[in-house]
Amino acid sequence: MSIQNVAIIGLGLLGGSIGLAIKERAPEIATTGFDASDTVRKRARKRGLVSHVADTAGEAVSNADLVILCVPVGAMGEAAASLADALPSNAIISDVGSSKESVAIALSEVLPDHTIIPAHPVAGTEQSGPDAGFATLFADRWCILTPAEDADEAAVASLSEFWEKLGSKIEIMDAKHHDLVLAVTSHIPHLIAYTIVGTASDLEDVTRSEVIKYSAGGFRDFTRIAASDPVMWRDVFLNNKSAVLEMLGRFSEDLTALQRAIRSGDGETLHELFSRTRAIRRSIIEQGQDDAAPDFGREH
Amino acid sequence: MSIQNVAIIGLGLLGGSIGLAIKERAPEIATTGFDASDTVRKRARKRGLVSHVADTAGEAVSNADLVILCVPVGAMGEAAASLADALPSNAIISDVGSSKESVAIALSEVLPDHTIIPAHPVAGTEQSGPDAGFATLFADRWCILTPAEDADEAAVASLSEFWEKLGSKIEIMDAKHHDLVLAVTSHIPHLIAYTIVGTASDLEDVTRSEVIKYSAGGFRDFTRIAASDPVMWRDVFLNNKSAVLEMLGRFSEDLTALQRAIRSGDGETLHELFSRTRAIRRSIIEQGQDDAAPDFGREH
Repeated sequence: MSIQNVAIIGLGLLGGSIGLAIKERAPEIATTGFDASDTVRKRARKRGLVSHVADTAGEAVSNADLVILCVPVGAMGEAAASLADALPSNAIISDVGSSKESVAIALSEVLPDHTIIPAHPVAGTEQSGPDAGFATLFADRWCILTPAEDADEAAVASLSEFWEKLGSKIEIMDAKHHDLVLAVTSHIPHLIAYTIVGTASDLEDVTRSEVIKYSAGGFRDFTRIAASDPVMWRDVFLNNKSAVLEMLGRFSEDLTALQRAIRSGDGETLHELFSRTRAIRRSIIEQGQDDAAPDFGREH
Repeated sequence: MSIQNVAIIGLGLLGGSIGLAIKERAPEIATTGFDASDTVRKRARKRGLVSHVADTAGEAVSNADLVILCVPVGAMGEAAASLADALPSNAIISDVGSSKESVAIALSEVLPDHTIIPAHPVAGTEQSGPDAGFATLFADRWCILTPAEDADEAAVASLSEFWEKLGSKIEIMDAKHHDLVLAVTSHIPHLIAYTIVGTASDLEDVTRSEVIKYSAGGFRDFTRIAASDPVMWRDVFLNNKSAVLEMLGRFSEDLTALQRAIRSGDGETLHELFSRTRAIRRSIIEQGQDDAAPDFGREH
């Protein structure tokens, strides 16, 4: 069963990009969309993010065979509740949230009789809102599906096929494991970036103007992800608490060990780590997950 | 007094870029160079990083009015000693090291009778070696000069003029303050990046292959600076110990506060920080210190 009618709830970076990707890569699929914000709905209509922007969530989903919730993970339950009454019984419910166990629980509480297949396309930029999306956001990126053990196999296949049409590569994973993996590859990096940018802007002996002027020494890289959507990221940390705290514990231990090495002048420990980390960068580039150009290809 | 003969000691990313920038932007200046590695000297000749690659440091500096040491900060004293005997008495000695107080001390011990004006061009990429340099590395970047209080003003003016010819903007700063500012805008970001990449590659419950596959969620950004030259960065941490440890203390306090907020479900604290950090990114872009394009302008 190929997906024919997709309803996108939430028309920000992710929702908008899904709509535009369908338009470009799978124009045979009809799209409707809804966003709780009137301003966002207007921009979505203007940009043509979906074929039809509905005025209620119920209207958007009434004819859908796939509904994708593209709202912050803390708002998933409420979004699902707002469309529950209008939802066709055979529609697949999915999402794009960055934490999966909490979303699965929230959705199954509100929609106990529907087919729920949570998903997470590992793609994005630091921008957000209805003007941020673009059709190629998912190209060559991984989309992780986290179906429950007893999930409908045909629904998983349909959703996989849908994401493949948008350019993604598919991985099936247990929700709990997803949350641990993403804690280290995404959530902790964001938390650290937010922290150091906050630390730098709160100093008394170094001015904010100095921090900005000399940011090319490394700091500016961190400001990019620290410019990500605050509500989305607040919700991620509140909804993936245990995995984030576990990974944060590991990180802090390792940082303390380096601190001790610096204090005691132990250059060997520093050099050993700094040499090892290059290999990971090389693998990421080899596997097409980042550009080989120096400095992210920034213009010089 | 305009600089007419520059000797570059160390022909890696920084030294090579200075040579190429002179060739492109100030061809009236003659360049000689030296590198302790035979292989690097060969590549430097092949790429034409300087007009003449000498076989000894002494030969390289014998006719120079400006000598720039482009070696790891821990090797500055030794590099200075290797050329001390051949150094013209009126030559200015400078460098490009990322920590300045320790370099000033090391150089003045070896060359007590020479004019020493330490400098730090805040520019670079994660690549290193004689093939990494390019002529526009310093364009629109800040170059910080940290002359001693009693430094020769004419020498400071000559060095400023030299860096301006290469495209840099000049700032004069006290060495101690420089080390504090750069600890936060460069050294701590590198230390954190090295740490999280190390943490991620040492996990047992998340495989290295998973870390690489899902790195687009934020982690890959950190791998770029964690691919920087290990010797250079080991030396930075050993030579800017007190400022790094002070800033690391602040960062750790802030991280602990966020950890507590996550544990207690305090979304307000998270949201407040995540909202504040966007402003810094905006200022960095407005001041031309980074690109406005989303995701560093990576291709999608």
